Amino acid sequence: MTAVLYPEREVPSQASVLEARKNTAHAWFSNLRDQVCELYEELEEHAPGPFPVKGAQPGRFSLTPWTVQNLDRPTSNEAHSRLDPNCGGVQGILRGRIFEKMAVHVSAVYGTFSETFKNTVLKIDGAGPSEFWASGISLIAHPWNPHVPTLHMNTRFLVTPQKAWFGGGADLTPMLDSRRTQEDPDTELFHSALKYACESHCSVANYTQFKTQCDDYFFLPHRQEHRGIGGIFYDHLWSENFDADMAFTQAVGQTTMAAYAQIVRSNFTKPWTAEERREQGIRRGRYVEFNLLYDRGTLFGLKLGGNIDSILSSMPPYVLWP
Amino acid sequence: MTAVLYPEREVPSQASVLEARKNTAHAWFSNLRDQVCELYEELEEHAPGPFPVKGAQPGRFSLTPWTVQNLDRPTSNEAHSRLDPNCGGVQGILRGRIFEKMAVHVSAVYGTFSETFKNTVLKIDGAGPSEFWASGISLIAHPWNPHVPTLHMNTRFLVTPQKAWFGGGADLTPMLDSRRTQEDPDTELFHSALKYACESHCSVANYTQFKTQCDDYFFLPHRQEHRGIGGIFYDHLWSENFDADMAFTQAVGQTTMAAYAQIVRSNFTKPWTAEERREQGIRRGRYVEFNLLYDRGTLFGLKLGGNIDSILSSMPPYVLWP
Repeated sequence: MTAVLYPEREVPSQASVLEARKNTAHAWFSNLRDQVCELYEELEEHAPGPFPVKGAQPGRFSLTPWTVQNLDRPTSNEAHSRLDPNCGGVQGILRGRIFEKMAVHVSAVYGTFSETFKNTVLKIDGAGPSEFWASGISLIAHPWNPHVPTLHMNTRFLVTPQKAWFGGGADLTPMLDSRRTQEDPDTELFHSALKYACESHCSVANYTQFKTQCDDYFFLPHRQEHRGIGGIFYDHLWSENFDADMAFTQAVGQTTMAAYAQIVRSNFTKPWTAEERREQGIRRGRYVEFNLLYDRGTLFGLKLGGNIDSILSSMPPYVLWP
Repeated sequence: MTAVLYPEREVPSQASVLEARKNTAHAWFSNLRDQVCELYEELEEHAPGPFPVKGAQPGRFSLTPWTVQNLDRPTSNEAHSRLDPNCGGVQGILRGRIFEKMAVHVSAVYGTFSETFKNTVLKIDGAGPSEFWASGISLIAHPWNPHVPTLHMNTRFLVTPQKAWFGGGADLTPMLDSRRTQEDPDTELFHSALKYACESHCSVANYTQFKTQCDDYFFLPHRQEHRGIGGIFYDHLWSENFDADMAFTQAVGQTTMAAYAQIVRSNFTKPWTAEERREQGIRRGRYVEFNLLYDRGTLFGLKLGGNIDSILSSMPPYVLWP
């Protein structure tokens, strides 16, 4: 009898590898959400004041699961794109004493993309509809204090029969003109943190390219101005090394979360004037213009018939077009 | 010598007829603007109070002429569509004690539509770019008092080498759910005024059709709700009787202006609660969503590189997405 040194193992099929990757990505997005909730609830609860809004209590995230079939809306707006009724996500919203509104959403959705949708929203080629699977996390923070910038972060994993890829990014939008500069300490901290994250994963991430893509993407052509001071933006990231791509995705999430917490800490107790609150309201109007006129993530959700409450929770709570 | 009973007259050319029609339309839009300013300034000045906002002064329209060449923005965002640098308009804004913001804009612009622009924004066929001329008036009122509905009215005359046509409409958006009904007195007054205007011009206007088109157009698919309680909406109006089309256009403007003034008068002194002001802010958010996601007039201006200040002055002054 021969000793079996290497017992016969089941070779995982392509399909089961892909399933495992979907699970890994989705599990990470949920895990990051839990970290985000813990960090920012801690900040709301324990950060020393003074707090800007009289009587406001420390905020906690309210997490609300949703499925497509429980939305009271049609699951398809874009001809032939549709979501499976069983898929969905968890919407997280915090309203507190540092954050006027903060949202963290994780979803895992699947269904069919129409050809039009692929071309116009996803910017991928291919005739005819495609089945797809997508999971991601979105984080949007609108602080009370006009001295604290607005944050947006999103990472996602998309799978179609032809390919699988990561996309995402993080960008910072200071509210006050006087702080919308590349020399502001918040700007420098944010850029250097993302630079470090990219350079630590340089086999898959090109910081210079991702930074340029961010500047190009978060731009309002009708006003000829950038949304904020930048960050990183990438799409169709597929190095053929899933683990490396996943590790970079994790670094983007954790780096952003930590860097932004530091930016919040150094600004949220600064006194502000009514004029600065007004400036914040106007700047937030530009944020709304970008999201509704240009943002592909917003269009992705709206056109697929996703959860409107989640998709539009990126809208700032208080906005002025005086 | 024979008496000349009918002296020889110059037969106007096709081109000069069209020029005269452009002038007539543009002159009317300016004339209507002057009527609007007079009526609503009078209301701001002489309507008996009490006025809702402490210390607010009667508003007057500030009229600011603009030309494309004086905008600090590129004149073309949509490939190959462009505006002539010499064309422009007059932007009118009032901030007062009844109206938080009211805008009345008249413009006369000309240039070239790209093929894409024609298909997607104008919904007209035809390969290749087209020269065009367009003039119109837009009226948008955002009153302070949540009991007073928001008004939108627009009429326009468009000319391309292939055709010339009128378009426009008027619709009312009550801010309070309790008043967003077809039985509300404001709703009934508004509908009956527009019905009368259409029926007085029934050779060119079909009220039932225009009312249905309004309901279909001012609809937010992502929320499955109408923007307001309706009104009328029409496009590509060309009966081959310019004078009749023009007369109907005038009726739409004057009827809307007068009916809305009556609605304002009967509501603007009603006391309101903080909760109602909040409801107004949220409803206005839906208004923003419609304008930036779907409104063809907004896209028309933005994609042609028009005057952003005018185009986006339809945005409500104070908006909440809590």
